[in-house]
Amino acid sequence: MMTGCATMNEMETKAAVRFGIMGCAAISRKVSRAIGLAPDARLVAVASRTLEKARQFASDNAFPEDAHIYGSYDELLQDPVVEAVYIPLPTSLHRRWVAEAARSGKHVLVEKPAALNAGELQEMLAICEEKGVQFMDGTMWMHHPRTAKMRELLSDATLFGNLKWVHSTFTYVGDAYFLENDIRVKADLDGLGALGDVGWYCIRSILWAVDYRLPKTVTAIRGSVSRSAAGVLLSCGSSLQWDDGRVATFHCSFDANLTTHLTVTGTRGTLVLHDFALPCEDDSATFSFSSDTGLSAQEREWRPFPSIEHRVPTDLPQEACMVREFARLVRCITESGSKPDQTWPAITKKTHLVIDAVMASIEKGFETVLL
Amino acid sequence: MMTGCATMNEMETKAAVRFGIMGCAAISRKVSRAIGLAPDARLVAVASRTLEKARQFASDNAFPEDAHIYGSYDELLQDPVVEAVYIPLPTSLHRRWVAEAARSGKHVLVEKPAALNAGELQEMLAICEEKGVQFMDGTMWMHHPRTAKMRELLSDATLFGNLKWVHSTFTYVGDAYFLENDIRVKADLDGLGALGDVGWYCIRSILWAVDYRLPKTVTAIRGSVSRSAAGVLLSCGSSLQWDDGRVATFHCSFDANLTTHLTVTGTRGTLVLHDFALPCEDDSATFSFSSDTGLSAQEREWRPFPSIEHRVPTDLPQEACMVREFARLVRCITESGSKPDQTWPAITKKTHLVIDAVMASIEKGFETVLL
Repeated sequence: MMTGCATMNEMETKAAVRFGIMGCAAISRKVSRAIGLAPDARLVAVASRTLEKARQFASDNAFPEDAHIYGSYDELLQDPVVEAVYIPLPTSLHRRWVAEAARSGKHVLVEKPAALNAGELQEMLAICEEKGVQFMDGTMWMHHPRTAKMRELLSDATLFGNLKWVHSTFTYVGDAYFLENDIRVKADLDGLGALGDVGWYCIRSILWAVDYRLPKTVTAIRGSVSRSAAGVLLSCGSSLQWDDGRVATFHCSFDANLTTHLTVTGTRGTLVLHDFALPCEDDSATFSFSSDTGLSAQEREWRPFPSIEHRVPTDLPQEACMVREFARLVRCITESGSKPDQTWPAITKKTHLVIDAVMASIEKGFETVLL
Repeated sequence: MMTGCATMNEMETKAAVRFGIMGCAAISRKVSRAIGLAPDARLVAVASRTLEKARQFASDNAFPEDAHIYGSYDELLQDPVVEAVYIPLPTSLHRRWVAEAARSGKHVLVEKPAALNAGELQEMLAICEEKGVQFMDGTMWMHHPRTAKMRELLSDATLFGNLKWVHSTFTYVGDAYFLENDIRVKADLDGLGALGDVGWYCIRSILWAVDYRLPKTVTAIRGSVSRSAAGVLLSCGSSLQWDDGRVATFHCSFDANLTTHLTVTGTRGTLVLHDFALPCEDDSATFSFSSDTGLSAQEREWRPFPSIEHRVPTDLPQEACMVREFARLVRCITESGSKPDQTWPAITKKTHLVIDAVMASIEKGFETVLL
C-alpha cells in the first residue's frame, strides 16, 4: 500500500531522510540496516541511555563516521540534523518519547505495539498531527510487495468472492532467558505481552484481510490464555465478528514452535501463507492462492489442485520497504508541504482498538465485547 | 492406525470379505470402486429403493456379472452371501438400517456422520456389539498411510514436543442445486448439516491430533453460524478446551471455496497440511512438518526454513485403505473368532460427543458446554 503524495520515482531525486535511532534494542539493528538499504533514508544519529552503548551500537551497525552519538534521547531530539526518529523502546515508554519527538518536530517511526492501549495511542497521534509530523508503526510486512499483490487478489470478486473467514497464527518459543528477561514479558515495560507482540501481527493481518473494517464484536477464546508469574500474557486467542457474517480467529503465544500462518477463505478463493510476518527469503516471497477449487463428481479428485503458488520479487527486504514508504511520506511533508498521511495512523489505531477489545474480553472471562 | 488381530500379510491369504451396498448415493460409487480395489474385499450385492436404480448402479460401477441386485434393503440383508454392508443412506436412516444390518449378522461400514447424535450412535453400537458384528464409520483419511506417519511425528517429544493448538478447516461451496436438494441440507434427512458433513472431518482431525482425548469444554464461535431456510446449519465454528491448556478451533461451511486445512502446533514442532480430508493425489500424499523453527538473532532470517515436506506413498487410495482395514477386522471375527474391534467405534463415539457439544453450545447462544 502506498498512500498520497509523491511516487517512488519522484522520490529518488530527493534528499535522503535523516534518521536518528532512539535505543539500541535488538530490533534496532534490523531497522538500522534497513535505513542503510533504503535509497531515500540515511542514518545520522543514535542515542542510548549511555554514550558507550550508543557508540558501540553505531560501530557495530555500520553508521557513517560522522554520525552523532548521544548518551540520552533528549540530546538526540535536540539535534537539528535529525529529521525522523525510530523508537524501539519498551512499549510503556512510547507515550513519553513519541510525544517528545513530535514536540521536537521529528517524524516518528515507532516499534509495535505502538502504545499500551488505544487511548494512549490517540494522545500520541494527536500530538503528531498537531506538530505536523508523520507517525507510522513498524509493522514491516505491510510494506512488502507481496502484501500488495495479495490485496489485489482478495479484491478480485471473480477470483476471491466475498471473504468468509480469516485465521491467523503467530507463535514462537520464548526460552527461559526470554521469559525471565525480555521486555515483552515485563509487566512494567510491556503490559500487553504476547498479545502486543505476536498478537499484534495476527490482528493486523485480520484487519488487513477485511480491508480495515473494524469487527463489531470480539470474543476471546476460553482456555487460550496463559500468563507469566508477573501476570503478563504468554498466550491468548480470540474470535472477531462482523455484521455481515465474516468471522476471524487467531492465536498467539510465546510457548509454541515458530508458526506464522494466515489463511483467508472467501466464497470463491483461498489465500494461504506460512510466513506472513516475515518472508523466508529476502529477495522474493511466496503465497498460495486457489480459486474455484472443487472436487470431481465422485469426490475422488481435486480440480484444480488447491494451491497455486505465487512468487513476488522485491528489490529490498520488507523492513527497507517500510523505511522507504515512511521516508516518502516525510518528504511529502518537508518538500511538498503536505499534511502528514493519516492512513497508516488510522490502521495503527484500529489495531489497538481490537487489542483493547481482546484484553477486555479476557478480563471479563471471555465475554463478548462490543467495539 | 491398525487395531488388533491379523496383520495385512496374513490377511492376503484369506477369502475376500463379501460386501453389499445399501443405497446408490454419489459416495457409493467411490466406495464401490474402493471395494473393487481392496485386495481383500469383493462386491456381491447392491440394493436401492427400486430394482431399476440398483441394476443401473451395478452396471455403472463394474459390479461382477453375478452380483445380486435388490429393490429393497431388507432383501439385501437377508442374502446369506453378503457378509458386510456399506450404508451411505441419509443420516436419519442410519439408526434403523445399522440396527437391521446388525440383527441380520452383517458387519457395518456406515457413512459419516454415523448418527444424528451420540445417544443414537450408542444404540447402534450396542446392537453391533451384541450381535458380534464390526462397526466402522467411513472417515477415509484415517486410513491413509500419511495419517500414521503424521501420528509418528506428533508422538515424537523431541521433534514435536507438547501439543498447544490445533486449527482445522473444511469448507466447500454448495451451489444452488445442492442448497436446494442435497440430503445434507434437509432437516428431516440430515439434521446436522455442515457440522455433520464437513464439521465431522474438522472435529475428527482435532481428536486425532490430541490422540482422542476428549476436550473438557466446547464453546461455539459467535458469528460463525448460518442456516438454510429450513434451519439446517450451513456454517459454524467452535473452540475446544482441554484441562492442560490445549486449545483447538475449527470452522466448517457450505459457503466458502473448498479448503481443507489442518495445523497442529506444538512446543517444538508444527504440522501443516492442506488436503487432510482428501489427498490431492492417489498414489501419495504430502504434509509439512517443521521442528525447532526459529529466527536469527536480528530476526531477519528463518532457521531452518519453516516447512519441510514429507511425501508418503500409498499402494491404494485412502478409501480402499479404509475398506482393507475394515475387511481385516471382519476377518478377525469370522476366521479367528475375535470380538469386534472397539477402537474405531470409540473414536466414532467421541466424534459424536463433540458434535453434540458444539450443537448444544450453538443452541445456548455460544455458551461454554461441559463434556
